[in-house]
Amino acid sequence: MLKKLVMANRSYRRFYQDEKISTDTLRELVELARYSACGANLQPLKFVLINQPELSQKVFSRLGWAAALKNWPGPEQGERPAAYVVILRDHAIDRGFLKDDIVDHAIAAQSMLLGAVEKGFGGCMIGMVNRKGLSKDLGLGEQHEILLVVALGKPKETVQVDDLEPGASTNYWRDEQMVHHVPKRTLDELIVAEHGDEV
Amino acid sequence: MLKKLVMANRSYRRFYQDEKISTDTLRELVELARYSACGANLQPLKFVLINQPELSQKVFSRLGWAAALKNWPGPEQGERPAAYVVILRDHAIDRGFLKDDIVDHAIAAQSMLLGAVEKGFGGCMIGMVNRKGLSKDLGLGEQHEILLVVALGKPKETVQVDDLEPGASTNYWRDEQMVHHVPKRTLDELIVAEHGDEV
Repeated sequence: MLKKLVMANRSYRRFYQDEKISTDTLRELVELARYSACGANLQPLKFVLINQPELSQKVFSRLGWAAALKNWPGPEQGERPAAYVVILRDHAIDRGFLKDDIVDHAIAAQSMLLGAVEKGFGGCMIGMVNRKGLSKDLGLGEQHEILLVVALGKPKETVQVDDLEPGASTNYWRDEQMVHHVPKRTLDELIVAEHGDEV
Repeated sequence: MLKKLVMANRSYRRFYQDEKISTDTLRELVELARYSACGANLQPLKFVLINQPELSQKVFSRLGWAAALKNWPGPEQGERPAAYVVILRDHAIDRGFLKDDIVDHAIAAQSMLLGAVEKGFGGCMIGMVNRKGLSKDLGLGEQHEILLVVALGKPKETVQVDDLEPGASTNYWRDEQMVHHVPKRTLDELIVAEHGDEV
């Protein structure tokens, strides 16, 4: 079951923009983040939920899309995300204890995206963010640092995972039918060693 | 469904050590990591699978356990993890392009732990690692940097999530029945703002 969900959870970048996602649904996704692991249980993550169309357009303009698709500036009007969850780090929480390189937001984002897929949506984690601009749009102060943006919507594209040929490029690409191809290293390439007694 | 899985996926630190996890099961977990998102699709993560008892003991001795439980040095013999997945970063892969602060390993670990829970196991992400020592135990060279260790087993403890009282400590604690309590901020505390049109 989970495997189906993980496989269906591709990084989607084109959506049916008019298929809205309710605030209640966004809250349910944050609830999944709330129950996900974090370093030392400090819970420094905070969240901003956005499905209001005008603000969504502003958020969109602060994001970088699919760096490997050189001639594609991102989804056009009508195919943009219907909602966003902006993941913040609250610097009022244990600034001294936590190192800079926390990974809590990645754990949270993975839980939220799997949850979105289960609900018939999908999305993409976006790290290429104009943080200063978005922070201003959202009226955030110095206390809240933007770590990651999760873009969400009803996916309008087919994403296909292909086995990566040894030595080939890992760049994703689009074919003539606009199918988005993602080459993934094979399982055997990922496993450096198995130290096992057979069970 | 996913919510049940996310809620059951607590950070477990005591296990039925004799309940083995097969290499095939560990490979299935890595397959979930393989299908999880990563920055720019570069896939710099590699994995070492360990369920061999003697080596597992060595791995155990390289890990820090539950920093907040000051009088508990970690699980005793008989309650230790039955298996480990060590997540590596392969520095032969795009050393130039990728920044130091990748979060791919956290995404991968979350997928693997959710998968473990679905299979009746559980575990814990451990970042407190004697990297030099473990690297030597595993015969790793400079190419492979240890990012995270995922400890796995059949959980032998009850973990209960409690709502965090405002202003109270986030430290987890154990009661007389050895139930492990984890105070979590409430959903309302996590959400800084909702910018929504009701749908």
